[in-house]
Amino acid sequence: MLPFQTLLQPDKQLKQHVYQQIAGRLINLIQEGILQPGSYLPGSRVMADLLQLHRKTVIAAYEELLSQDWIVAIPRKGMMVATNLPLMKPRSYQPAVSPYAQTPGFRFNTQIPSLPAQVAPTKTRLVVNDGAPDVRLAPLEEWIKACRSIIQSPQYPKRLTQGPTAGSENLRQETIRYLSHTRGLRLDLQNILITRGAQMAIYLAASLLVKKGDAVIVASPNYFYADQCFEQLGAQLLRVPADQDGIDTDAVEQLCRTRKIRCLYIISHHHHPTTVTLSAVRRMKLLQLIRTYQLAVIEDDYDYDYHYPTAPILPLASADHGGHVIYIGSMTKSLGLSIRIGYMIAPAAFIEAATALRRLMDLRGDNLSEEALALLLADGTIERHLKKSNKIYHERRDLLCRLLTAKLGDAVDFVPPNGGMALWLPFHRRHPLPVLATKAAAQGVAISDGAHYNYGGLSLNALRFGFASLNPKEITTVVNILAGILQT
Amino acid sequence: MLPFQTLLQPDKQLKQHVYQQIAGRLINLIQEGILQPGSYLPGSRVMADLLQLHRKTVIAAYEELLSQDWIVAIPRKGMMVATNLPLMKPRSYQPAVSPYAQTPGFRFNTQIPSLPAQVAPTKTRLVVNDGAPDVRLAPLEEWIKACRSIIQSPQYPKRLTQGPTAGSENLRQETIRYLSHTRGLRLDLQNILITRGAQMAIYLAASLLVKKGDAVIVASPNYFYADQCFEQLGAQLLRVPADQDGIDTDAVEQLCRTRKIRCLYIISHHHHPTTVTLSAVRRMKLLQLIRTYQLAVIEDDYDYDYHYPTAPILPLASADHGGHVIYIGSMTKSLGLSIRIGYMIAPAAFIEAATALRRLMDLRGDNLSEEALALLLADGTIERHLKKSNKIYHERRDLLCRLLTAKLGDAVDFVPPNGGMALWLPFHRRHPLPVLATKAAAQGVAISDGAHYNYGGLSLNALRFGFASLNPKEITTVVNILAGILQT
Repeated sequence: MLPFQTLLQPDKQLKQHVYQQIAGRLINLIQEGILQPGSYLPGSRVMADLLQLHRKTVIAAYEELLSQDWIVAIPRKGMMVATNLPLMKPRSYQPAVSPYAQTPGFRFNTQIPSLPAQVAPTKTRLVVNDGAPDVRLAPLEEWIKACRSIIQSPQYPKRLTQGPTAGSENLRQETIRYLSHTRGLRLDLQNILITRGAQMAIYLAASLLVKKGDAVIVASPNYFYADQCFEQLGAQLLRVPADQDGIDTDAVEQLCRTRKIRCLYIISHHHHPTTVTLSAVRRMKLLQLIRTYQLAVIEDDYDYDYHYPTAPILPLASADHGGHVIYIGSMTKSLGLSIRIGYMIAPAAFIEAATALRRLMDLRGDNLSEEALALLLADGTIERHLKKSNKIYHERRDLLCRLLTAKLGDAVDFVPPNGGMALWLPFHRRHPLPVLATKAAAQGVAISDGAHYNYGGLSLNALRFGFASLNPKEITTVVNILAGILQT
Repeated sequence: MLPFQTLLQPDKQLKQHVYQQIAGRLINLIQEGILQPGSYLPGSRVMADLLQLHRKTVIAAYEELLSQDWIVAIPRKGMMVATNLPLMKPRSYQPAVSPYAQTPGFRFNTQIPSLPAQVAPTKTRLVVNDGAPDVRLAPLEEWIKACRSIIQSPQYPKRLTQGPTAGSENLRQETIRYLSHTRGLRLDLQNILITRGAQMAIYLAASLLVKKGDAVIVASPNYFYADQCFEQLGAQLLRVPADQDGIDTDAVEQLCRTRKIRCLYIISHHHHPTTVTLSAVRRMKLLQLIRTYQLAVIEDDYDYDYHYPTAPILPLASADHGGHVIYIGSMTKSLGLSIRIGYMIAPAAFIEAATALRRLMDLRGDNLSEEALALLLADGTIERHLKKSNKIYHERRDLLCRLLTAKLGDAVDFVPPNGGMALWLPFHRRHPLPVLATKAAAQGVAISDGAHYNYGGLSLNALRFGFASLNPKEITTVVNILAGILQT
């Protein structure tokens, strides 16, 4: 007889019933070939004695095995391990290591580039992020109230079970209305797909447009996760320099003239990472190129809602582009909630294809969140929040610019951004960012070491200084600490 | 002078400021080539008269255009349309139609198959779905309370801003604990990725494994959205018949012997759509094949938590598979919340690649939801909910089986499912489902016409009868209506 008292070892501390533990372990022994087909288990009384358990527990375990066909009850002989199981070579009596600690023998795609890890925020006093909103300003209480009002409404079971993949109809309607007020876009329900933030919209648009080997134009430097989307799909990236007026449209034209371009990705407001805005002249030039070359354009306008000196220039999407601009935006950035909701705007046929693809990646969004956001758009909460936070972020930008000029002097060289949540801050070469970041971390301040922004083989010495999520006191502290480091 | 009073037409009903409307419209006129570079705008007094607006409104609009470089102020001459804009041919004076109503000239992938639309639930009294939980039983109040407690905690700004792509660490820890209790899995943090429901996990695993032309084994019939994931990636599907014991493992072995198999997709409990469970014998056979052929297996176990006669057979993932089983589960199905949270379990290197790819599709999950779910797992709410709803769904299954036998007689031929939320219900050929569904809809009951389940060229006459989301009275009503239709 096998040493069942060693092999079975129930653990009474576990939540799982002891009889289930015994049954599970017996199945393992069968699977591992230790308990051979055709062999008999000890009678329940014997086994109960061996394991120091109540006989009923053993009987329950055996019944479990019977119901799963691992064993069969042979009259007057007892419980026999089923003989229709494939015979297996006995192996070690030791419990196997977790299969998930092993390296599988199959191949898989490990080519997706991973960016260097950001500094972990938990151990630090202050984090300078890439340009995130201030969660402390977010309308969280209003959010919870909206959620509660939805689940308490008599229609909630219908509304919550299974919404459309394209997103809650209420939210699509409210977003269309919002985009009409703020961007002058004229849209139907069939022109919009609600996504998980802007990132999913970029991935979907890229997946529909790009096949292996296709040429895609991006600005240099560019938002790294957009670059990676295109690369993951096998695109060849054509990097066109961007200056203070945005991407060089003459260079884009040159490329369009000489080869087949699959699409162009552009952030027309507050380009990531450099925060420049595409000038009016270049916008017109780009619209001309769109018409001439039937160019598909992915316009990522994640940051439109925050603009400080004046109203923002309208996006390319608002102009006459013949349906060639796939327009992408985000509510996540605006709200500062941890809820990720964005949208894609495009001609109906494109939205239809994007919706079908999104269904395969993620059947649908969270209806409760989508309905709650629709409520907050409808009752004006979002607009009030944007107005309030626009004013606050504007002040924080101004404060940061003043402090940087006063305290860091010629160690930095920056142009104030005309909107958004971050300032592009190039440091003089004599202050390498990896060194600066290490010293700042020692003083409790997490800043980027700049590696993210050098994606694609660049060697900039710059970072995005997210000012929106820091209050005036925090901004002052960070700049003082940086100034102290630079002086030593 | 252009007919500005016609061309500009501000709409005072709109939320957008009138001056912004005027500025936006003027930009359009410039972009459309109607207002030519070098031409002059009327003075603000003249324009105000023309448009019947206050002069200050016009001045504000002009300032907007100045700040955006669309026009320049020429001393003693007025506002001139900038000459550094590319010259464009004037076109119609009519406002252009929405660009998004136009068909773009670029090509894109429209090959993603779309399933026939389900019957819309809004107009109906009762919906028989595919096997969804009952939202009325979901712990929604507990959910809201958990969310509130998180946003009121002093750590919330740090926790909510930017969580890791792999999912909240609290949720990963709680899920690992849960999977250890219920499936005997031994896992580390690096073996788990939190996703948006099981669907995203399937898409990620498939994307990492499958390249164009690769052979993938699936059961026939199979979950249509899994089939579509593989097809979208260019896989060649090898459909292996499944009977009451699940997929035919001898046929799988035959395929493995004769050609290179990229992976196998399997639902080991309550196969979709037919609800059969893979038998113990075939499980062992499959584990043998995994070891022999180094086969990658995607085990979709979305429905494990609901099992009626006994505890479920452990998944393949719990056995000794050398890291070859990529295990996928869902909390969405269990909870009946509209919050979509699932997970993928795999060896660390695979999880790392899946996390990098997920980041490109969807930067991260909703931290608030993930933290709330972690709380409800930790305080036992989820376990209590599962226990309660398991009992209720068990009763509903039994009631449905009794009623179907008693009232539909030999019009149907079914095997009671041993778990899950749906019953696979084949109808006799003399009762074609499209006809039945149309007649049922006329009486306020939405049932599937079966088209979904015939994906891949099948011609079954069967549907999944989701019993979990209907209470006893609703189940009785539906069966009575179906019985009435069949008798006529």
